[in-house]
Amino acid sequence: MAGSHPRRLLLLAHGDFPERAKTAIGLLRYGTDPVVAVVDPDQPAGSTVDAAVPDLPAVPFVRSVDAAPPADVAVVGVAPIGGKLSAPLRAAVLAAIDAGCDVWAGLHDQLSDDPTIAARADAAGVRLWDVRTPPVEPQVATGEPHPGDGRVVLTVGSDCSTGKMTATMALRDAALAAGIDVGVVATGQTGVMITGEGVVVDRVIADFAAGAVEAVVASATAAHELVLVEGQGSIIHPAYSGVTLALLHGARPDALVLSHSADRAHIRGYPSVPIPPLDSLIELYEAVAAPVHPAEVVAGVLNTQGLRTDAADAAVGKMASTTGVPVTDPVRSDPSAIIDALR
Amino acid sequence: MAGSHPRRLLLLAHGDFPERAKTAIGLLRYGTDPVVAVVDPDQPAGSTVDAAVPDLPAVPFVRSVDAAPPADVAVVGVAPIGGKLSAPLRAAVLAAIDAGCDVWAGLHDQLSDDPTIAARADAAGVRLWDVRTPPVEPQVATGEPHPGDGRVVLTVGSDCSTGKMTATMALRDAALAAGIDVGVVATGQTGVMITGEGVVVDRVIADFAAGAVEAVVASATAAHELVLVEGQGSIIHPAYSGVTLALLHGARPDALVLSHSADRAHIRGYPSVPIPPLDSLIELYEAVAAPVHPAEVVAGVLNTQGLRTDAADAAVGKMASTTGVPVTDPVRSDPSAIIDALR
Repeated sequence: MAGSHPRRLLLLAHGDFPERAKTAIGLLRYGTDPVVAVVDPDQPAGSTVDAAVPDLPAVPFVRSVDAAPPADVAVVGVAPIGGKLSAPLRAAVLAAIDAGCDVWAGLHDQLSDDPTIAARADAAGVRLWDVRTPPVEPQVATGEPHPGDGRVVLTVGSDCSTGKMTATMALRDAALAAGIDVGVVATGQTGVMITGEGVVVDRVIADFAAGAVEAVVASATAAHELVLVEGQGSIIHPAYSGVTLALLHGARPDALVLSHSADRAHIRGYPSVPIPPLDSLIELYEAVAAPVHPAEVVAGVLNTQGLRTDAADAAVGKMASTTGVPVTDPVRSDPSAIIDALR
Repeated sequence: MAGSHPRRLLLLAHGDFPERAKTAIGLLRYGTDPVVAVVDPDQPAGSTVDAAVPDLPAVPFVRSVDAAPPADVAVVGVAPIGGKLSAPLRAAVLAAIDAGCDVWAGLHDQLSDDPTIAARADAAGVRLWDVRTPPVEPQVATGEPHPGDGRVVLTVGSDCSTGKMTATMALRDAALAAGIDVGVVATGQTGVMITGEGVVVDRVIADFAAGAVEAVVASATAAHELVLVEGQGSIIHPAYSGVTLALLHGARPDALVLSHSADRAHIRGYPSVPIPPLDSLIELYEAVAAPVHPAEVVAGVLNTQGLRTDAADAAVGKMASTTGVPVTDPVRSDPSAIIDALR
């Protein structure tokens, strides 16, 4: 899917920007294709995305697809719970198709399963990419050693949405700057859109989830010295822990990076599940990894979004002291300090 | 799906009986519907299934569907790796349809996705039941307490195919004999066919696996005093651990029963993954369960198939001493001794 020339992207982000617009923000921050506008009818006319999230580029908000500059691809840039396409988003998808755009989406609702969308895309001669459709045939994990020599590092989390994808991309950039031959295996819809490859593991039939991860990680180990695998969910997440464990045992990493968010005391949306002390969470990850392929947590990444600099520094210091490994917030600070720990 | 009157079953078990015929054997041993014959062209003419597996009833083998007595339902009774329908099995399915049978199957290949099978079933006016199709809409686990007071007990294993389904059915029978109001939540194709309900969890999209389990267990807790949930795979299985963890966190059991097979030193098919000492495996299960819903292993079930009685007794005694909980082989011995531990 990775194209060789830049495509102009139009991001559809109806409602809840930036909270629910993980995909849009990921593409704005780490994508290599230019973004012409973000469609969100709730934003003030004439405003730009950096007004909402300061470290993003000054891309304009527009109120509709019709008001947007010309684009090649419209991307569904929000990740609603359950992955359903809302009515306003669906209308925007149809408008983008009529304007001649390809459409990419990472929702559980497949664009190509919607007869109206499929027919309009066909008529307009544009392509639909449901990034959650697995790129490999259903396969059971073999458990065989990966074919290449690449060192595999997986991000694991205390919860969903702690910044695993963001950290993975920031570590990639720092590794590249350090002259390391690094590859990323994306495992979520945003990461797959940014890198143009990978597998959206939560969309795979449970029996084949580890097998799908194994297949994409195996290829990457033959191509790169360092392979950063984007993590998903958490081993203690009441709904998504199965995805997390399939990823851990399918990727069979050589080392782990623990991702946490400073504002998180319990699993988001599950107040009855507190996040345990991070040292015991590390013990749990290492204990579960060990029977299949031993791996230790060698570094930590902390999301300190919303904290003042001094509070953020204190939170990073506290996590480093609790976990006993180097920690950074890769959005706020240069993560090159922890790159050495990954090799 | 549970019918109120018995249906005559014809079991299709082409090749590898009894090794690959887990579903056929489960229905022969624990099903409540009568089995008229088992179709397997590889078996000697005139032989019966108890010649192959002594504790089964003396149901005749036949060489083809045409040679079988009249039946109401043909069941695909083998569980090939990867869940593919082989050419001889497919031919037998078509012959059964032409003979007016409904067809049940628990394969990954869905009967209803095969245009020829679907058209012939339609023409013959018979019904196809793909038991792996989830009975509930895709839903994310809520993590809410179960609505009923039923005590939930989940079987967890050292590996796949250690006898979790068999143990669950034997414990059900023993609990019924002890006057306990007990229900079973089946989670694999054989268990779902035997009980007529449940969810084949390994066929659910990974994101929704825990949610599907939660939904079926929640209903059962409102209907029964004791709810036995059939386990799947193992937390240390390189391919299926994600399914196991989705089941553990979705079911949120109050207690666990550890299932092991005496002949198993490593994960079947994965010689690089030894099964750890059972006391440390118990620690791992309890550690992973705890953050979501604490549960202890309160009993063990050991599959001693193929051992002489004295060796089987010794193996059961050894597992009891390693684990510190009551252990039995529920196929060989009356499991009522461990029922007390489940309440």
